[in-house]
Amino acid sequence: MTLYKQAIGCCKRFLHYAFDYETPKTLVIPSLGVGFVFRFTQFLVVMYVVGYVCVVQKAYQDTDTVISTVTTKVKGFAFTNTSDTEPRFWDVADYIIPPQSDHSFFVLTNMVVTPKQVQSHCPELPSPSTTCVDDCNCVEGRSDPRGNGIQTGLCENYSTTARTCEVLSWCPLEIDTKLPEHALLVAAENFTVLIKNSITYPKFNFHRRNILPHVNSSYLKRCEFSRLTDPHCPIFRLKHIVSEAGEDFQDMAVKGGVLGILIDWSCDLDWWAGECLPKYSFRRLDNKHPVNNVAPGYNFRFAKYYKAADGEETRTLIKAYGIRFDVIVFGTAGRFSIVPTIVNLGAALSFLSLVRREMFRLASETRSLQQTQNNTSH
Amino acid sequence: MTLYKQAIGCCKRFLHYAFDYETPKTLVIPSLGVGFVFRFTQFLVVMYVVGYVCVVQKAYQDTDTVISTVTTKVKGFAFTNTSDTEPRFWDVADYIIPPQSDHSFFVLTNMVVTPKQVQSHCPELPSPSTTCVDDCNCVEGRSDPRGNGIQTGLCENYSTTARTCEVLSWCPLEIDTKLPEHALLVAAENFTVLIKNSITYPKFNFHRRNILPHVNSSYLKRCEFSRLTDPHCPIFRLKHIVSEAGEDFQDMAVKGGVLGILIDWSCDLDWWAGECLPKYSFRRLDNKHPVNNVAPGYNFRFAKYYKAADGEETRTLIKAYGIRFDVIVFGTAGRFSIVPTIVNLGAALSFLSLVRREMFRLASETRSLQQTQNNTSH
Amino acid sequence: MTLYKQAIGCCKRFLHYAFDYETPKTLVIPSLGVGFVFRFTQFLVVMYVVGYVCVVQKAYQDTDTVISTVTTKVKGFAFTNTSDTEPRFWDVADYIIPPQSDHSFFVLTNMVVTPKQVQSHCPELPSPSTTCVDDCNCVEGRSDPRGNGIQTGLCENYSTTARTCEVLSWCPLEIDTKLPEHALLVAAENFTVLIKNSITYPKFNFHRRNILPHVNSSYLKRCEFSRLTDPHCPIFRLKHIVSEAGEDFQDMAVKGGVLGILIDWSCDLDWWAGECLPKYSFRRLDNKHPVNNVAPGYNFRFAKYYKAADGEETRTLIKAYGIRFDVIVFGTAGRFSIVPTIVNLGAALSFLSLVRREMFRLASETRSLQQTQNNTSH
Repeated sequence: MTLYKQAIGCCKRFLHYAFDYETPKTLVIPSLGVGFVFRFTQFLVVMYVVGYVCVVQKAYQDTDTVISTVTTKVKGFAFTNTSDTEPRFWDVADYIIPPQSDHSFFVLTNMVVTPKQVQSHCPELPSPSTTCVDDCNCVEGRSDPRGNGIQTGLCENYSTTARTCEVLSWCPLEIDTKLPEHALLVAAENFTVLIKNSITYPKFNFHRRNILPHVNSSYLKRCEFSRLTDPHCPIFRLKHIVSEAGEDFQDMAVKGGVLGILIDWSCDLDWWAGECLPKYSFRRLDNKHPVNNVAPGYNFRFAKYYKAADGEETRTLIKAYGIRFDVIVFGTAGRFSIVPTIVNLGAALSFLSLVRREMFRLASETRSLQQTQNNTSH
Repeated sequence: MTLYKQAIGCCKRFLHYAFDYETPKTLVIPSLGVGFVFRFTQFLVVMYVVGYVCVVQKAYQDTDTVISTVTTKVKGFAFTNTSDTEPRFWDVADYIIPPQSDHSFFVLTNMVVTPKQVQSHCPELPSPSTTCVDDCNCVEGRSDPRGNGIQTGLCENYSTTARTCEVLSWCPLEIDTKLPEHALLVAAENFTVLIKNSITYPKFNFHRRNILPHVNSSYLKRCEFSRLTDPHCPIFRLKHIVSEAGEDFQDMAVKGGVLGILIDWSCDLDWWAGECLPKYSFRRLDNKHPVNNVAPGYNFRFAKYYKAADGEETRTLIKAYGIRFDVIVFGTAGRFSIVPTIVNLGAALSFLSLVRREMFRLASETRSLQQTQNNTSH
Repeated sequence: MTLYKQAIGCCKRFLHYAFDYETPKTLVIPSLGVGFVFRFTQFLVVMYVVGYVCVVQKAYQDTDTVISTVTTKVKGFAFTNTSDTEPRFWDVADYIIPPQSDHSFFVLTNMVVTPKQVQSHCPELPSPSTTCVDDCNCVEGRSDPRGNGIQTGLCENYSTTARTCEVLSWCPLEIDTKLPEHALLVAAENFTVLIKNSITYPKFNFHRRNILPHVNSSYLKRCEFSRLTDPHCPIFRLKHIVSEAGEDFQDMAVKGGVLGILIDWSCDLDWWAGECLPKYSFRRLDNKHPVNNVAPGYNFRFAKYYKAADGEETRTLIKAYGIRFDVIVFGTAGRFSIVPTIVNLGAALSFLSLVRREMFRLASETRSLQQTQNNTSH
């Protein structure tokens, strides 16, 4: 019996413990002033949540960063006929180096060509450290990092007026100081490039291409990107890209440079948001100012190797100046998710509680202070 | 004395202010109904925190995105013997262009070769804009962007039936309209590629390779990736990659394409989570449908330059069709961190408080309403 | 009249509902012990918010990940004169392959050259699967994936002691087993590389270069990176990079490898934070240990194609060993933002409320328990 009673008592206590609903006693204070301030603060917090968190920052969303692939295809040809070089016709296979790469392409616009180089020895280019009077000034086997080869220990006539140390190198040496003032491939500004970009937001399993679904093939064959009239055409005129970046093509073509084609895929993937579209922008990425700079512009050296009938290897060294276009794809997509929503609402709620509590404490303290003062004055 | 008393009083008041523990008076309401609803809501919130936040979303973790390097090495050779071309043996140095690059490799599968091109002039390929009757139809110096060179102003016989404007260009011109129906390097589907991928999560100082620590060299020399039997072998057969992407290799090889090899390194780095392993997936990244597309497939032009004994430069122009394999590495790693844990728990807690408060308000309002009604009815 | 009164009543009730300020009744408990524990917990929470959230984790900030472009320029030359090869001078155009690429550059340090290859047939390299006694052992048209060509069905003398199946291939075949023990381009360790890196944080519209604004051109022309004396010089000696990664250059140069040049642009962009500067670090990215590895080191094959006077194509196959330097740019920038601040403060606040409530419950329960005990003991 006693055990049975005890069991019931225990059970009851447990039910009480589990389901008794404990709640703070509250006072209702009919004060218009405090009430107004409280409601106003509440209003501010709600405004913050609705206006800033939800509309501006979209903090209720889970986010993911873009992964992308890019293919580019340049079109155009040029004919050069300057006093220094032979007349020559240039097409894509000549001026795009290397012929393919991902995320960037290089367009040759200017060059210093040194043909018929062979492995031999020749006098160094004159400079304070290479000029010599006789063989004693030249040390066999020395290699000056600013020089062009390994010294043979001989002092040779570079010209009728200058004598320099002889070096073992690809001879004749490249003379890259007299770069043409005007770019060689002036016509490069009218080349066009087709950029195909395919992106993925893996977290949302979302795929998209920069060639939009509603665009048809015939439009793509004749369109050209323009921010106002054709903002979704993936074919860009090089001159247009450079001028949108605030630069002059002919200016940039002389010494080369790096130009960023930025594709922003920032998207709101909730169904009530609009379509997800790429936004193009262009920016020069290298430093064109001569101060606080080293090796301005953009250039690199490469060689074409030939073998003569007797088996001797000759090469044509080319110092290529040009514009490297880097296609940079970036962006963040957001989609409604319960966790950030709860986190943001929860944070706002705890501020509301704080406001409520602190305001009451203030109110009650003020009142008790007044009462104390009243008591004292009595 | 008075000063001393005042000091003590002041001190006491401070102690009271600092350590008096203010707490709301609470009512314990022994209502099974309200209590049950309250506990149930509490249960829901706790479930949300434990189940969704912790288990599904792992919101208690700090995250970092992956940085990675990739090296690839293709193996295989092919022999081609079609009616159009001479018999030829192909190895890696022939069909991988460029020979090395990071994050992607291109396998040549089809091509249009135009050998023995020299800088000269020849009649244009016939098209509505290039056909002419006599020299009057051709303007010297004009360069049509859809043409192949700079017009010389002459009208020449292209064939016995067609006359076209002569252009200055690399001649003979490339005729890329009759692309072989079947890919040239049919055997390319049996080439294999070894992909070495090394990743880092810099925030967690975590490094990993896709060649797992427990795998030995002899296995690596003979294995081949298969989702079921060898999911961690880093050697992939090209045909397998393409078929996993839902494409047919021979079909894709004709006009080329871009194929993504996606490596997902999403990892849970907490010690109680399992190992961090790469997950491979494959997806075609270019648009193969002819509608809503331009320049379908993937191709680019490059040239091999030769110099004849008399110094004249000739080139072999190659329009290379093939599959570019892009290795795309992505992923996010998470590790327990106190800040997101606190943030998520805090948000859940403030919901619990809200539930408690609002539920009581509802309960008390209901009761007072009932009382009012009782009073009225009396 | 009644309607008017009702309207006023309704209005009053609404005002009461809207502006009555409901607040919990509180008890002030003058207990030093409980109060101390409460204040101490409060102190801990505040410390967490100020110290950890704000100072260590900077959780009040909105973050963005870096996007970047890199250009590299290597300088240096070498002279090789080993017993195997002819004396040869090497400059940038010879040892950087491909001549330009973004985010990485490859420096040739060792090689196996197979000159004068032509499309023909020759006996296979001896191995268990290629040796033969007579033609019956060789199957016409068979192509062994580990072999070097397509079998012609003949069995030929490879040397005076070995007979192997003849294959159709580029002949003579490459023999890559006797790699020189010492790297060919020993001098490569003294090459220098200029790395130009330009970064953007698109969310904050923040751009920066690794060549800092206060650095002048003359310094840039003669400086060399050193962690202690020149931490912001963008010119690196290859030997220095490799040794900072804990490797030996000459050792690594024999079989090649991949070396990461990591540039960390993690920045605090709030105005009270200091400047945003790149931090360089270096790490070997491939696995150098022979166990648990396949194809150790880093190499690739490429060919230089020549055409003889009679039109026959010959090539020089080069198996290039070398170090690929990958420039990996990463980083996260943070800037003060109201949303994460509110979220973190809110979470901390809700913990404070929890502490307050739970502590009181504990205190009151203890007291009521004591009273019950007292009652029982009476």
